[in-house]
Amino acid sequence: MSVELEDIHEECGLFGVWGHHDAAHLTYFGLHALQHRGQEGAGIVANDHGSLAGHRGLGLLTDVFRDETEMRRLKGDGAIGHVRYATSGSKNVENIQPFLFRFHDGDYALCHNGNLTNCTSLKRGLEAEGAIFHSNSDTEVLMHLIRRSDKPTLMARLKEVLPRVHGGFAYLLMTNDALIGISDPNGFRPLELGRLPGGAYVLASETCALDVVGAQFVQDIGPGQIVTVDDNGYSIETYVPDPQLSICSMEFIYFARPDSNIYGINVHSARKRMGARLACEAPVEADMVIAVPNSSLSATCGYAETSGLPNEMGLIKNQYVARTFIQPTQELREQGVRMKLSAVRGVVEGKRVVVVDDSIVRGTTSRRIVRLLREAGAKEIHMRISSPPLRYPCFYGIDISNTKELIAAKMSVSEICDYIGADSLAFLSLDGLVESIGMHEDAPYGGLCVAYFNGDYPTALDDYEEPFLGSLPRSERERLRREWRCSDYRHDAGVGK
Amino acid sequence: MSVELEDIHEECGLFGVWGHHDAAHLTYFGLHALQHRGQEGAGIVANDHGSLAGHRGLGLLTDVFRDETEMRRLKGDGAIGHVRYATSGSKNVENIQPFLFRFHDGDYALCHNGNLTNCTSLKRGLEAEGAIFHSNSDTEVLMHLIRRSDKPTLMARLKEVLPRVHGGFAYLLMTNDALIGISDPNGFRPLELGRLPGGAYVLASETCALDVVGAQFVQDIGPGQIVTVDDNGYSIETYVPDPQLSICSMEFIYFARPDSNIYGINVHSARKRMGARLACEAPVEADMVIAVPNSSLSATCGYAETSGLPNEMGLIKNQYVARTFIQPTQELREQGVRMKLSAVRGVVEGKRVVVVDDSIVRGTTSRRIVRLLREAGAKEIHMRISSPPLRYPCFYGIDISNTKELIAAKMSVSEICDYIGADSLAFLSLDGLVESIGMHEDAPYGGLCVAYFNGDYPTALDDYEEPFLGSLPRSERERLRREWRCSDYRHDAGVGK
Amino acid sequence: MSVELEDIHEECGLFGVWGHHDAAHLTYFGLHALQHRGQEGAGIVANDHGSLAGHRGLGLLTDVFRDETEMRRLKGDGAIGHVRYATSGSKNVENIQPFLFRFHDGDYALCHNGNLTNCTSLKRGLEAEGAIFHSNSDTEVLMHLIRRSDKPTLMARLKEVLPRVHGGFAYLLMTNDALIGISDPNGFRPLELGRLPGGAYVLASETCALDVVGAQFVQDIGPGQIVTVDDNGYSIETYVPDPQLSICSMEFIYFARPDSNIYGINVHSARKRMGARLACEAPVEADMVIAVPNSSLSATCGYAETSGLPNEMGLIKNQYVARTFIQPTQELREQGVRMKLSAVRGVVEGKRVVVVDDSIVRGTTSRRIVRLLREAGAKEIHMRISSPPLRYPCFYGIDISNTKELIAAKMSVSEICDYIGADSLAFLSLDGLVESIGMHEDAPYGGLCVAYFNGDYPTALDDYEEPFLGSLPRSERERLRREWRCSDYRHDAGVGK
Amino acid sequence: MSVELEDIHEECGLFGVWGHHDAAHLTYFGLHALQHRGQEGAGIVANDHGSLAGHRGLGLLTDVFRDETEMRRLKGDGAIGHVRYATSGSKNVENIQPFLFRFHDGDYALCHNGNLTNCTSLKRGLEAEGAIFHSNSDTEVLMHLIRRSDKPTLMARLKEVLPRVHGGFAYLLMTNDALIGISDPNGFRPLELGRLPGGAYVLASETCALDVVGAQFVQDIGPGQIVTVDDNGYSIETYVPDPQLSICSMEFIYFARPDSNIYGINVHSARKRMGARLACEAPVEADMVIAVPNSSLSATCGYAETSGLPNEMGLIKNQYVARTFIQPTQELREQGVRMKLSAVRGVVEGKRVVVVDDSIVRGTTSRRIVRLLREAGAKEIHMRISSPPLRYPCFYGIDISNTKELIAAKMSVSEICDYIGADSLAFLSLDGLVESIGMHEDAPYGGLCVAYFNGDYPTALDDYEEPFLGSLPRSERERLRREWRCSDYRHDAGVGK
Repeated sequence: MSVELEDIHEECGLFGVWGHHDAAHLTYFGLHALQHRGQEGAGIVANDHGSLAGHRGLGLLTDVFRDETEMRRLKGDGAIGHVRYATSGSKNVENIQPFLFRFHDGDYALCHNGNLTNCTSLKRGLEAEGAIFHSNSDTEVLMHLIRRSDKPTLMARLKEVLPRVHGGFAYLLMTNDALIGISDPNGFRPLELGRLPGGAYVLASETCALDVVGAQFVQDIGPGQIVTVDDNGYSIETYVPDPQLSICSMEFIYFARPDSNIYGINVHSARKRMGARLACEAPVEADMVIAVPNSSLSATCGYAETSGLPNEMGLIKNQYVARTFIQPTQELREQGVRMKLSAVRGVVEGKRVVVVDDSIVRGTTSRRIVRLLREAGAKEIHMRISSPPLRYPCFYGIDISNTKELIAAKMSVSEICDYIGADSLAFLSLDGLVESIGMHEDAPYGGLCVAYFNGDYPTALDDYEEPFLGSLPRSERERLRREWRCSDYRHDAGVGK
Repeated sequence: MSVELEDIHEECGLFGVWGHHDAAHLTYFGLHALQHRGQEGAGIVANDHGSLAGHRGLGLLTDVFRDETEMRRLKGDGAIGHVRYATSGSKNVENIQPFLFRFHDGDYALCHNGNLTNCTSLKRGLEAEGAIFHSNSDTEVLMHLIRRSDKPTLMARLKEVLPRVHGGFAYLLMTNDALIGISDPNGFRPLELGRLPGGAYVLASETCALDVVGAQFVQDIGPGQIVTVDDNGYSIETYVPDPQLSICSMEFIYFARPDSNIYGINVHSARKRMGARLACEAPVEADMVIAVPNSSLSATCGYAETSGLPNEMGLIKNQYVARTFIQPTQELREQGVRMKLSAVRGVVEGKRVVVVDDSIVRGTTSRRIVRLLREAGAKEIHMRISSPPLRYPCFYGIDISNTKELIAAKMSVSEICDYIGADSLAFLSLDGLVESIGMHEDAPYGGLCVAYFNGDYPTALDDYEEPFLGSLPRSERERLRREWRCSDYRHDAGVGK
Repeated sequence: MSVELEDIHEECGLFGVWGHHDAAHLTYFGLHALQHRGQEGAGIVANDHGSLAGHRGLGLLTDVFRDETEMRRLKGDGAIGHVRYATSGSKNVENIQPFLFRFHDGDYALCHNGNLTNCTSLKRGLEAEGAIFHSNSDTEVLMHLIRRSDKPTLMARLKEVLPRVHGGFAYLLMTNDALIGISDPNGFRPLELGRLPGGAYVLASETCALDVVGAQFVQDIGPGQIVTVDDNGYSIETYVPDPQLSICSMEFIYFARPDSNIYGINVHSARKRMGARLACEAPVEADMVIAVPNSSLSATCGYAETSGLPNEMGLIKNQYVARTFIQPTQELREQGVRMKLSAVRGVVEGKRVVVVDDSIVRGTTSRRIVRLLREAGAKEIHMRISSPPLRYPCFYGIDISNTKELIAAKMSVSEICDYIGADSLAFLSLDGLVESIGMHEDAPYGGLCVAYFNGDYPTALDDYEEPFLGSLPRSERERLRREWRCSDYRHDAGVGK
Repeated sequence: MSVELEDIHEECGLFGVWGHHDAAHLTYFGLHALQHRGQEGAGIVANDHGSLAGHRGLGLLTDVFRDETEMRRLKGDGAIGHVRYATSGSKNVENIQPFLFRFHDGDYALCHNGNLTNCTSLKRGLEAEGAIFHSNSDTEVLMHLIRRSDKPTLMARLKEVLPRVHGGFAYLLMTNDALIGISDPNGFRPLELGRLPGGAYVLASETCALDVVGAQFVQDIGPGQIVTVDDNGYSIETYVPDPQLSICSMEFIYFARPDSNIYGINVHSARKRMGARLACEAPVEADMVIAVPNSSLSATCGYAETSGLPNEMGLIKNQYVARTFIQPTQELREQGVRMKLSAVRGVVEGKRVVVVDDSIVRGTTSRRIVRLLREAGAKEIHMRISSPPLRYPCFYGIDISNTKELIAAKMSVSEICDYIGADSLAFLSLDGLVESIGMHEDAPYGGLCVAYFNGDYPTALDDYEEPFLGSLPRSERERLRREWRCSDYRHDAGVGK
């Protein structure tokens, strides 16, 4: 993952199987391919002829399942699993999913990727009716709503309650006799359906997890869709009248593994096109292009090939840096001890260097990179960012909830350039981004959510709207209110309606 | 690291400091940058005003030093540390270094990177005199010889006994009042001297570890040199009359981190030149070039830039694959479950692909890669290897001790091509390798050891000579005997002389 | 703990503090003294000026809190903690307490010792209203009831809902501003109030935990009482009109630590009196008395002193036996390998031995003990049990829920004697037990619950009544129905009526 | 173990098997029964048809062998194992035994219980000849001597070198084809031979380990004996002309498990006789006798029965206290928090109490016990110690090497009584001790070493003599020199003479 974007966190990875006699193991390997989507915790629930059993814990998947001991308990033909991203404050096993709920009329396992915009309101309402919450996560809310619905079937209950749940979400729900995948009405978070050779079906956050278990891609689970997999195969229904795709563009820019495809578009290729477009939009005379390992490798390749500049390894990331609890003291840091990223003097010394990175969040990492390269003797340093400036928070499942953290929300490009100490700085244009990804959807921004760049949120912000707008300067606040695409929808929606 | 070369193991990484009040921490960070050289075990010994204390254990450095608990015991101004490579059979903490020896007249800590060719003979002789060995490692042998010498000073003892120790080695030895680094008479294994801002000196297997602790490069410790660092600074002496550099070419091809320099040559740049040369020597009409992550990234870049073909990400390595104890069963593997390497269908489907890898050992990995790419729809697959075929074992510290494992010792290039299932296969020529690295030393092969490619071992093989020659066909055996460069030296040397 | 009674498990140990600046540490030490009441898991929740934070995990307290890392997060003046007993099937961290519930109007931490007789009915009713359960434990039920009450204050809510919760329970509930302890209307499970020198108050399952933290005993929290501790001190209220003490007699016989006092009676002394009474009721001519370590040490002392026979160490328990994962194979067991209990040949060989144990559950352990002693050469073996035969299950928090497991429910004393292979066997009489404990309460059985011995359950059995009676022979069933003390109360109560 | 004697540590426990197909598992279970002899580390080496493999680590046996993973590697018909005692300074895995030595002519595994008096001299001499030492332990010395002997057979070598090794020791040595046990010329440390039903032989430090694996006692390995077990059975030889038994009396007083027999004497029974004798020698009018759990239980029983006083449980030890890393702060300790030992107020309040303990080392624990009992309301406290005052260090394997630590070396009995705050204090007489144990050997002190009580060391003290005598007052020094039993032997012996 890019150094800079380590500040941004995806909300999780999901994987589920139905119809394979070794479902838990497949889920393990599927989650393994999704580990980049979350390292705080992991869990698996398996379905052994209608009896659900689970195991979950803090840490990487390989920490949670150290050996076969726990796997042996997870028997059966169906399973769902989850990897969860790391935040500082909430390292509690309570929040690790899938959650397992036991009722007298059956068990449910549920896990979730995303963020609900009206979660606080929903919780407040549910608490008023006596509901109890064990975790901080949004996931419990859906289960409460399902259980309080008086519809006769689970599908009827889902169709009733899902429209009340706003925001970005992909859910996997396993009951005693089915595996169900759910995407929000905008399809913010990806969810992919695949088929194993023997006929079992697989649901995963990314196609790379389908590949890893040998499943063939069937289709993306699109906005507002519910896919049900049971012993009879799969079926797909839609629970909102007018779903409109706004898939998170950060999946293309940073989150997804380069070998994943989203709506038919390969992520590596999209990134390479972003780099190529950036080379056209912001060329520079230089001796070489270098990547910030690992996430900007594809974009750097595109930049280098289009610009004709050589692609060099000017920065190295220590691949063993994770889980290193011993950190340099302040004194050692000042003496130049650094563990994670090294500039390659033998490559950059005396050279004019273009550094391609995928984004700038706070600017501190870019600043560190520029300093490293200067110390290693680089003569000129030109930062090129293969996405537009991040100016607005995300409320749909990426952990950028605060504009105060975003340097581009506070500074102009040339101020950022000064701050990070580069000789020049350029970002990819929003059009450049949309066209490089190239979804060709008949939808705003080609079916992408680009709200972090321009504030054009595709849904009402519900509980977040007031505090968010309040945090903005007046002119900006008014501009957004005026321009918001779906303001009607937004203002019609709201909790409790 | 490359998938293929995971079959080859470096013997270790060394790091030492003298004259810094936080020597053990610096050693920790230095070893951290050398972790790619060995993952089986790690250890550090620190020198607190003449009193040596150490800690070592199995696993990665971060396993051995989980928190500050052990580090707190390792006080003092001097320290040496070691990371050890992983082999299957010898996971015993006995073999983890540095070794700490306590005598009534002082303590010694010793660690070692390399392999002695006359170790068995030396051990046999020492045992006959009553010596006791605790480990399988060659390291103890040197300490026995030192202690049995009757010279009055340590330096005199070293000069007496080092000529009796044959093969490839870099030693770090710490006594109560000095840090000593030793290189074998051919300088097979790299050893680098650096200087910290405050005046402390650092010795490390690679310059990347100097960079990480903020040390400035001073010089390579060359063949036959002993460097002594104490409170008065450093001094270098030579203990053989005619040292001749034959540094291991695999350091450039595979082992060393791309940001390291060896004899002034940057490893990434050398690799890129190998790839560029390979593009000239073995061009092919194709749609793209792809790397086998991670070690062939540089060579692939060179190949792509010289050939003018686009450099694409056609193979992905799961960065979380290490330490995964749960492996797919045979059945799951046959169903297509694979954890480590994925081919990117969205990139390679329907394409003619050049795959650049750094070497072929057994051929099984190349075969797997070709199959992965075929399954992902690649139309043509052209393997290009950025080094010559590996035909002979190494006896100087790389774990290829058996020709039977080397596919190129048994098959022609076209047979290998058939075996791995590629559409074409080509290796870099030996001249191409030597010129790409470009040492320009006035020495055979530019000062490189290339014996794995042509059998031209720069030293006598001692204990290994008979079994090695015996394993060869007669004609080959005779050719080697005839051509061996230093046969006189070889036949003059031998144990006990 | 006695070997035999390892088959019986207490439901847990509770500890809470209010008003001490290091509340979490005190709770740690208090739980440490209660570890004998549960080894499956442990947890602590601390209250830092109204903000609750917790940590819990599987295993012993020392596994869950390995070092100060987690403790440092648990700041504040109030804390509650829990140790949970071990059962085979439910090793899930979900069930480890205290549970921490977060509501928009404040946090609650709750833990529980005991068992509710109407839990299934309550859960069924709550589920019908949409409630969701995360754990198997009875604890969540109370929180659901509290949250669904529409009374204005927490105390009013408690008084409303506690009468709906039947069975045996001690609860500790911590809110943002108070620590609350609750005992069921029969006081089945002990709960003790103490006072620290500085004025802080402590609640604990046993007085031994008060002693360990230096607290002075204040009073037992009796049947139907709620004690509230806040910054103003403590107050006690009663929530049922006619509480009647029936404290679990197994606390005296087996569970409680010998240094604890219950209603003013020291447990060791009570056990010693049981042994002395047993010596009167069932004397035998023999050479020595021996204990089954550790729980029958006190009773054995009493038997020996009253009988005048020497008290010898004829059986030894390996104190390191816990957490030994490597067990003898069947073959090694047959060859005589045994890890846990050894007979002391040098003591018992050729001797007539009285073995005092505290109870017989399944009889398998007694049988093993007799065999061990025979193999060690004992000439005669007379088993003396310092409590009456266990014939009926407990529904109030001891894990004997099945008459089928109880040998005394199926066999007469002389049949048991044959089964275990002893020369004679005698149990303490029920009168003997009650008088030895000597509560002198003006209540049936002196305020003790002795239902496991005679079926005289002090409350309605609610959800358990039908299956329990159904498992009995008809005559027994009728006898019980006829004799049940509180049949009116029982048949008036019950959920859903 | 007694609280007071936790200050004294045994040097280890040994266990070996020859001729059983599951030798490593038997060794595991045998060591498990010897765990009380050492908790710092453990190891096992197994012999699989002449090939030796081992595993060892820090911590309890159950930490070192957590599951079957390591055991599976330890195949074969022979095995030896070791548990090592805990000292503060030397927690290095280097010192954990058995040591495994590999030579071209075979492997040796060696472990050791005891202490050599001339180890420093021997090491100095060996180092002068070039020997290298890896550990602090005395064990390596023997291996060096064996390997330097030029005798043709191992037995001849042993007979040559064992007389040069002075002090207290039991060794287990396993070669490719035999298991050998060795006892020092005084038999200071116990070593027991047993026979399994199938004909395999077992050697162990205590008979309790024979019992646990189902082995029948064969004989004690006496002073100066070497027992060799191989595929032909066992044979015993003696390597010194005039062995004389002086077995460590602390084995009877404190170290050995009560179910062990030493030279036919049951340890529990011996302790009970010590208590009975103490009741005769030092009676007191009181209300009860109480033990300091766990090691004085037997002696307390003897005191109680002889005195006619009731035996009560006035002190409780928390059985979960081991491995508790979180300790009360000084502040909490002052507030009365204590984890390990509790006084039972309900038992001792207002009573005159006799406390029986097995020894007093520094006096701090006795002082703490008296304080605890006073705080719990005891009216009078009479300490009775079931062994004589410890006045002199042990040089044969018990970790009391410093008279400065021994309160009885500095104070009279009445001064100690004042220091600990008891109402009276009495120790068992030396005659009382010897007669209670009752070895009836025709040897000084009935074949016991009682040097810690009277300074009458049965051997020369070699390297320790000068510093020890130098630490004594002149008169004491002269008395000892004058009275030393074996002064001739002592002054004839000595290294290098």
